[in-house]
This record gives sequence, structure tokens and C-alpha cells, in this order.
Amino acid sequence: MSEVEDVVVHVPLGDRAYDIQIGRGLIGRAGALIAAVAPGAACAVVTDANVAKAHLGALEQSLAAAGIRHESVVCAPGEASKSYAGLQEVCDAVIGARMERGDIVVALGGGVIGDLAGFAAAVVRRGMRFVQIPTSLLAQVDSSVGGKTGINSAHGKNLVGAFHQPILVLADVGALDTLAEREFRAGYAEVAKYGLIDDAAFFGWLEEHHRGVFAGGPDRVHAIRTSCAAKAAMVVRDEKEEGDRALLNLGHTFAHAFERLTRYDGARLVHGEAVAVGLACAFRFSAALGLCSGQDAGRVEGHLRTVGLPTRIRDIPGWDGGAAAILDAMFQDKKVQRGALTFILARGVGQSFIARGVDADRVRAFLDAELDRT
Amino acid sequence: MSEVEDVVVHVPLGDRAYDIQIGRGLIGRAGALIAAVAPGAACAVVTDANVAKAHLGALEQSLAAAGIRHESVVCAPGEASKSYAGLQEVCDAVIGARMERGDIVVALGGGVIGDLAGFAAAVVRRGMRFVQIPTSLLAQVDSSVGGKTGINSAHGKNLVGAFHQPILVLADVGALDTLAEREFRAGYAEVAKYGLIDDAAFFGWLEEHHRGVFAGGPDRVHAIRTSCAAKAAMVVRDEKEEGDRALLNLGHTFAHAFERLTRYDGARLVHGEAVAVGLACAFRFSAALGLCSGQDAGRVEGHLRTVGLPTRIRDIPGWDGGAAAILDAMFQDKKVQRGALTFILARGVGQSFIARGVDADRVRAFLDAELDRT
Ligand SMILES: NC(=O)c1ccc[n+]([C@@H]2O[C@H](COP(=O)([O-])OP(=O)(O)OC[C@H]3O[C@@H](n4cnc5c(N)ncnc54)[C@H](O)[C@@H]3O)[C@@H](O)[C@H]2O)c1
Ligand SMILES: NC(=O)c1ccc[n+]([C@@H]2O[C@H](COP(=O)([O-])OP(=O)(O)OC[C@H]3O[C@@H](n4cnc5c(N)ncnc54)[C@H](O)[C@@H]3O)[C@@H](O)[C@H]2O)c1
Ligand SMILES: [Zn+2]
Ligand SMILES: [Zn+2]
Repeated sequence: MSEVEDVVVHVPLGDRAYDIQIGRGLIGRAGALIAAVAPGAACAVVTDANVAKAHLGALEQSLAAAGIRHESVVCAPGEASKSYAGLQEVCDAVIGARMERGDIVVALGGGVIGDLAGFAAAVVRRGMRFVQIPTSLLAQVDSSVGGKTGINSAHGKNLVGAFHQPILVLADVGALDTLAEREFRAGYAEVAKYGLIDDAAFFGWLEEHHRGVFAGGPDRVHAIRTSCAAKAAMVVRDEKEEGDRALLNLGHTFAHAFERLTRYDGARLVHGEAVAVGLACAFRFSAALGLCSGQDAGRVEGHLRTVGLPTRIRDIPGWDGGAAAILDAMFQDKKVQRGALTFILARGVGQSFIARGVDADRVRAFLDAELDRT
Repeated sequence: MSEVEDVVVHVPLGDRAYDIQIGRGLIGRAGALIAAVAPGAACAVVTDANVAKAHLGALEQSLAAAGIRHESVVCAPGEASKSYAGLQEVCDAVIGARMERGDIVVALGGGVIGDLAGFAAAVVRRGMRFVQIPTSLLAQVDSSVGGKTGINSAHGKNLVGAFHQPILVLADVGALDTLAEREFRAGYAEVAKYGLIDDAAFFGWLEEHHRGVFAGGPDRVHAIRTSCAAKAAMVVRDEKEEGDRALLNLGHTFAHAFERLTRYDGARLVHGEAVAVGLACAFRFSAALGLCSGQDAGRVEGHLRTVGLPTRIRDIPGWDGGAAAILDAMFQDKKVQRGALTFILARGVGQSFIARGVDADRVRAFLDAELDRT
């Protein structure tokens, strides 16, 4: 696949500006690329056992070839590593590797490793440099862009963390070849989300080229580049998530409730699957409120089903929650502003907007109808 | 003591600018003062059991009187709370109290509580607002100013944390009346430090007015105001400690080594005492290197002894370390830049400077001589 060329998305955040480089074989070239942006810096690589097996050797070799002092920390795979204990493990390992403020924490992995390593980079010695090498599709198109890092609390996901921008993101599309199909598909829900938020043309392109995206090659690079650029643009407009960065949560108020109610059990539901159901719900809810056409809601659902993603609450294995439970789980969500429910709704494909103070009764009625259908 | 008027030190940090208010009875007025800078915000008060006994009631009453929703977390007193477990306890309590991003974490206590609560404020929901109500002299003149927050790692003190500026600091000099004499004295070492760094006139004033500072009243307010202003000026010049903020570490390269070698056992040595010995060492070392006069070194030692502070390594109870052990403990210090020893030395009282690449042999010889003396 050497015909695939690197593309670069620049994220213009003033003195925190950085590049997202997207291409094939970037892990094998990471040493030289890192040395170019941070000459002389040492690297603490944070990864998980799955990713280590597939890609850590290549990364370490490339760092060594570039003359970069490096040490690696291998965490347990899975969301449970995004914990206080995980933070302690990674911080202590980075400090124990005698990394100083100018040195670099490198996250090699999916969103779990990116969030955890990024948070460690934010707090070790009150801030080290940070490089992301995302290896899941979700991490390449979403979590590695934007500087949100963190861990989970007993009270909920991502409640403890920091905004900490990387100095470089290397999205090696080849790394995705070792990713489980289910994880790739889940990440695709986030790709589709960018089209649904504000880029109807991209959603149309996905409807035509999704096979190419799943296959790898130039279509995959194009989808990742478009997604990164969309997220980067929103991050630049609203770095600290005080305004319209919230559009990125399209489908997520629902999704977070589904994840909470399935106790973040990845065997039942992974994040991207929850997002797929959430996106479909957001459009059906918008249609129910008369905001968008039933045709658009159907088109969203149709595409997600075509690529094999779930779109109905009933699609969630072992589902047993009612509307009240879903509403409760939604209201707990940290995106709730002083009691008023905020949703991202849509007037059509690519026409999402922030709807504040949505009436809980309308939501309950919608959910009842959803759960009644079989 | 109602004749003591409030004074305000403004810290002009652009969009992170804030006021340090210094006076008597501020805890009783905290509710109104907080409501004035952050109308409508709820408060999570973080304190320790000692401070809670003496001052939490008054603070809670004042918050209630101002109509501020508030909840309190009481930590165990002592450095051990500046840990990952302490961070988890405080973050989860703050989240559990349903505090949102615009709400406030209030640190009511000494430097331990300020550092811990400030770090929690920096990371809960990726950043909440933060108010400092320092209740130890050290916290009022040093740790509450400058935005450095954090916890300790197994590898050393303050290695994990964040820069997070408060929106308001209330230094109630009356709170110091319940502080143990030994703790007050220890904090005084940091007050003297500001004179020694770059304000010979202030050091001279302290030599004359130290009794008034210990007694309370206007001299205490003056000393705290002068100290806060000195630290604030340095913080404004160098918020992220990349340059001459390092002058604030006068005496601290030595002090940190002494603390490490006494295993941070406060029964033997509290931080300010270590700083007193460190300040005296920094001046004697400067004299030994021919940088400053022996007379100035004697003057520093004389004043510290007058107020009852230790000035000799041999003053540290149960001391058994040799020069090699001290050097080792110094070299481990995070302020070491890629192997070269950096000291803050002085050409005289009020004439400190950053000395980089100090030769370890000169340090060893100095320490040998220090330890030989009896
Ligand atoms: N920071 C943000 O802005 C942001 C945005 C969205 C999601 N997230 C977070 O991201 C996390 C989810 O990320 P994720 O879906 O990547 O989960 P993940 O990191 O757990 O990765 C999913 C699984 O794939 C494995 N894996 C990853 N890359 C692989 C590869 N190339 N080859 C083989 N196996 C591989 C992992 O070991 C894991 O088992 C969640 O914690 C979520 O909160 C963060
Ligand atoms: N952030 C910074 O810039 C900075 C600067 C210097 C020191 N520090 C940190 O500050 C800490 C030391 O601070 P400290 O000396 O205040 O220690 P501390 O917070 O442990 O307080 C000392 C003791 O006095 C008690 N106490 C505090 N105020 C009291 C009061 N008004 N009445 C009765 N008892 C009271 C405490 O319970 C404790 O037992 C260290 O952890 C150090 O690393 C931070
Ligand atoms: Zn998502
Ligand atoms: Zn100090």
C-alpha cells in the first residue's frame, strides 16, 4: 500500500499549535518525526498489552534508530486502566524513567491509552510534552484530537482530567489492520458523526465509499483526514468546550446513558456502538419533534445498519432498561447544565445544533415509543 | 485587633488575574467576598481535621449567610494527604457534592490542603474555580501564591500536579492565632527568604520588627503583604517556572535534601526549619565560594537564630547523614537540569542569583566542613 501518501492536518492553536500526520507506516518513522519536532527529548511510551504485541517493537526500533532514549510502560487493556490507580502507575513509571519536563510522553494505543497517558503528561512535573500515536479508528478520528485527557471517577466517566494538547499526532492507518473488526466498526460511528454534524457532502461520500474505508488505502486516509479536520476546526473554535464544541456530542447524550446502563461492559456495548444507536436516536428524536424529516432519520439509520452498526435501543444485547432509567442516566450526565437537559439535535443530515432546555416529558415519550417498537 | 485594615495584593496574570486579600477576620467574611467574585457558584470546602476544628464552623456560617450552597471534605492532617489516594478522596467528594465546572473548590488550611485541593480543582471536570484560604503562615506567604498545586509521588515531593491559579486568596492573619508556634516560626523562614532574595530593606525591617510579626497586628499584615507581593511579582514574571522564578528556591536545594534524609518526618524537621538551615547554608556556601562576605552570612544566621530557627545541619535532631548522602539527595532533586547542579547563591543580603553548573566537589567540601563543625 505504498501508494498511500501522508496527509497533514494542522491544528492552529497559537503557541499550542500542532500537526496531525496521517499515513501508512508512520510508527516505523515515528523516531525521526518526533526528533524533528523535539530534538534531544527522551520518550516514555505508554501502551497497552494488545497494542504492545502488535506495534511496540516497531516503535521502539524506530526511536532507537533516531537515537532517542526511551522506556515503555505497558498497561492492562481496557477502560479499567483509566482510573486513579492507572494514573499512579503511569506517572510513577514516567518519573521512574527519569523523564524531565522537556521530555515526551508518547501514547501508543486507543482512546484509553491516549486519555490516560495524556493526563499523565499533563500532570507529571506539572506538564510534560505529549505525542499521540493513536492505533484505534476511534482514537485516530476523535480522542487523539482536541487535547481532552482524563480518567474515570466512581461517579462517572472522564470526570477527572486536563486539557493538554499534544505536540504531534501520528495516525498510522496501517496500525488499524490489527484492530478487531468490531472496534473498527465502532470507530466508524464517530466518522459518520462528522458528516451528520455539519458536512452532508462527507456523509454522502461515506455512503458511497464506506467499503474503501473499511478496506484501507486512500479512502481510509481520506475519511480520517476529513474527520480530524472537522474535529480540529471545532476544537480551534472552542478549545475548552465552553461553546459549540458541544456539537461533537451529537448522539452522545443517548450514548452515555446506554453505556452507563450496560455498566460500560464492552462485551455488550462498546462506545462507538452506543454512539451509533445514539446518532440514530438523535435523528429519530429530531424527527419526532418535527425538526427534521423522517426521511433523513431513515437515511442515517440505513447507513449505520449497512456498515453493521446497531441503531435501535433493542439492538443492545440484554437490554432491560425502561425510559425512566434512560432519563435518569442522562440527567446524571456531566453535560447537564444546572438541571436543564441539553441535546444536540438536527434539522437534517449535516444540520445539527445545540438544543437547550429540552423538556424531559418529550424525551420520555420518545423513549417509550422507541422501546415499544420491536 | 479591629484596628488592622485589610490590604490587597493584586496578581496581574491577564485573564487569570486575581487578588490576595490580607486582613483579620476574613474567614468570617469569606461568603460575601466569594459571592462578589463568583455570584451563584457553589463551594466545596477542602480542609484538614486540625483546621476544621478551629475554623470550619466560621467559614461554613459565612458561606451560609451569603446563601452559598456548600459541602465540606475533611482530610487527615499532614503531608501524607498529598497523595494519589488523597487526590482521589478529594476529587470524588467534590464530584459527589455535585459541583460543576463553574463551581468553586475552597482550600481552607495550610500548604498541604492548598496543594491538594488546588490540584483537585485543576482536574475535576478538567478545571473548576479555586479559592485559597491559607491558614498557616507558610501557606499565606508562599504556597497559596503562584498557582503551583500537586501531590507527592513515591519518587519525590510535588512531582505530580498542575499550574492552576486561584480566583481569590483570603489570608486571614487571625487564623494564625491557632497555629502551633513551631509552625508559625517555620513559616517565618519563608518570610525572611523574600528579604534575602532581593529585598535587603525588608530583611532589615524584619530584624527590627520580628517581635511584632510574631505578636500579630499590623506588623504581621505588613510582613505577609510584602511576602505575597514579592512572590506574586516573581510569578508574574515567570508563571510556569521556566526562568527566574527559580530564585524562590533560595535555600531549597539544601532544604529538600535535609527533608528527604529525615524522611519528611515533621516531628524531626518541618519544611520551614529545613529552609532556615538551607538559607544559612546557601549564604555560608556563597561565602565559602568568595561570592559574599562572611559578615552577611553571619547576619543571616544571626537573625534566624534570634527567632528560634535552626541554622546548622547539626541542629537537625538525630542527624546522621554525611556529605555524600546530602549530595545524593540533592542530585535526585527535580530542579537538577540534565545532571548539572543548580544552586541559588547570593552576593549578599538581598542579592541572590541563579548559579548553574556548580561543581559537585565544591559542594562536597563545603558540606564536609559544615558537618565537621560542632
Ligand atoms: N479524549 C477524547 O476527546 C475522547 C473522545 C472519545 C473517546 N475517548 C475515550 O476513548 C476511549 C475509547 O477508545 P478506544 O475505542 O480506542 O478504546 P481502547 O483504547 O480500549 O481500544 C479498544 C481495544 O482495541 C485494542 N487496540 C487498540 N488499537 C489496536 C491495534 N492497532 N491493534 C490491536 N488492538 C488494538 C485495545 O487494546 C483495546 O482492547 C474511552 O475511554 C473514551 O472515553 C476520549
Ligand atoms: N504550592 C507551592 O507553591 C508551595 C510552596 C511551599 C510549600 N508548599 C507545600 O506546603 C506544604 C507545607 O505547608 P504547611 O507548612 O502549611 O503544612 P500543613 O498544611 O501540613 O500545615 C501544618 C500543620 O498546621 C496545621 N494548621 C494549619 N493551619 C492551622 C491553623 N490556623 N490552626 C491550627 N492548625 C493549623 C495543619 O493541620 C498541619 O498540622 C508542603 O506540602 C509543601 O510542599 C507548596
Ligand atoms: Zn464518542
Ligand atoms: Zn519553601
